Amino acid sequence: MLLDTETAMARKTSKINVVPQAILEAASNLFIQRGYEGTTMQDIAKELDISRSALYYYYKNKEEILVSLTEGLTLAAEQLASQVVEKGKAPEEALREIVYQHAKLILYRPVQFRVVDQALGSLPEKQRKIAETARRIVLQRFTEVIQRGIDEGRFRLVNARVTAFSLIGMCNWTAWWFKSAGAKSAEEIAEMLADLSLHALERGEVKKVGKAGLDETLRILEENLSQLKEVIDTQR
Amino acid sequence: MLLDTETAMARKTSKINVVPQAILEAASNLFIQRGYEGTTMQDIAKELDISRSALYYYYKNKEEILVSLTEGLTLAAEQLASQVVEKGKAPEEALREIVYQHAKLILYRPVQFRVVDQALGSLPEKQRKIAETARRIVLQRFTEVIQRGIDEGRFRLVNARVTAFSLIGMCNWTAWWFKSAGAKSAEEIAEMLADLSLHALERGEVKKVGKAGLDETLRILEENLSQLKEVIDTQR
Repeated sequence: MLLDTETAMARKTSKINVVPQAILEAASNLFIQRGYEGTTMQDIAKELDISRSALYYYYKNKEEILVSLTEGLTLAAEQLASQVVEKGKAPEEALREIVYQHAKLILYRPVQFRVVDQALGSLPEKQRKIAETARRIVLQRFTEVIQRGIDEGRFRLVNARVTAFSLIGMCNWTAWWFKSAGAKSAEEIAEMLADLSLHALERGEVKKVGKAGLDETLRILEENLSQLKEVIDTQR
Repeated sequence: MLLDTETAMARKTSKINVVPQAILEAASNLFIQRGYEGTTMQDIAKELDISRSALYYYYKNKEEILVSLTEGLTLAAEQLASQVVEKGKAPEEALREIVYQHAKLILYRPVQFRVVDQALGSLPEKQRKIAETARRIVLQRFTEVIQRGIDEGRFRLVNARVTAFSLIGMCNWTAWWFKSAGAKSAEEIAEMLADLSLHALERGEVKKVGKAGLDETLRILEENLSQLKEVIDTQR
């Protein structure tokens, strides 16, 4: 009995989550096609093939939909980025993860992200401030991870803030091209962006050995020696 | 006399170029603030503090302004990217330059770029196709430069198309943050993005020495040896 009740509750909860997601998705598509101002609640209900009253049960107007879209994305981005920093991992791992998580968030909801970006000016003042604060925190978290990597001698000496903007931009822009990129999954693309970011910041191997300890330094020297041998052999 | 005529003509040409740029700039600001649909020719004339008939002398309607904005940016981007490829430089140089040029274009006209991005759906069909073709060519040029670097063993083995999208995205997103990035100039930021891109793709030093010839391999070995010495000293 208890199990049945729990299952029923789980089903109900899941349905509650599924319907608003479908509404947000349909509304986003329309906002992108016709603009936020050019879309009505009637259009959204029609797109979903539900009655207007069914739609009003979830959102009392278009603005509520936009607020929900914005909060869903910007607060999630803030939370993901903050979680990475709080874990206190090594800079390389932290960079990889913060890029991966942010990219995956955008790649899961590219159209919603574009709506949030374009319609920021249509948000009520209070909600706009919340969204802007969330964005600023995401930027801070990226900057912290990069700066720590520089301070600990693991990353090249770059402008941490400009680099943070650049990596975030690389992730955000996926919302504009993801669907045209062929058969790659969101996870695969997020992984590629994390890899590009890490390589963009890592110090070259030669510089890295100093930090790597004796064994690693010897290993790299051996690799270089065998390559030297190859070069000499080629020239003979 | 001839000189005077030339000077007068040059002045006239320069004025012709300056006025439309001021119109495009003012219109872009309004399109971003109020949306393309929410802006009238009257608003644009008022913003520029000119009469409506003066504005109509340059553009007969709002759509013409949007078309001019879009052509100005997308065709310039296509041209810059194609020029880099045609020069046939080494992959490292070509990558640096294609990123630098594309970033600088966006950084010079960030608001205009955002308008072009957002109002693509409001363009007449024919103009939209032209803009989309130009974008596709920019993507191709970036992809070509990256792929050539991979084929010649100068860049890491990455997905060239996804990487092209990523680097373009990094450049494009500057339109969203440039003004908040403090005292850096457009050129400085473009330089930083080119540097990040190159590091994201270059092979690590250890791998590179095989291609670098005897002298370079020896130099790197010497550097590694001196770092080995430091590591040993530290551990004593």
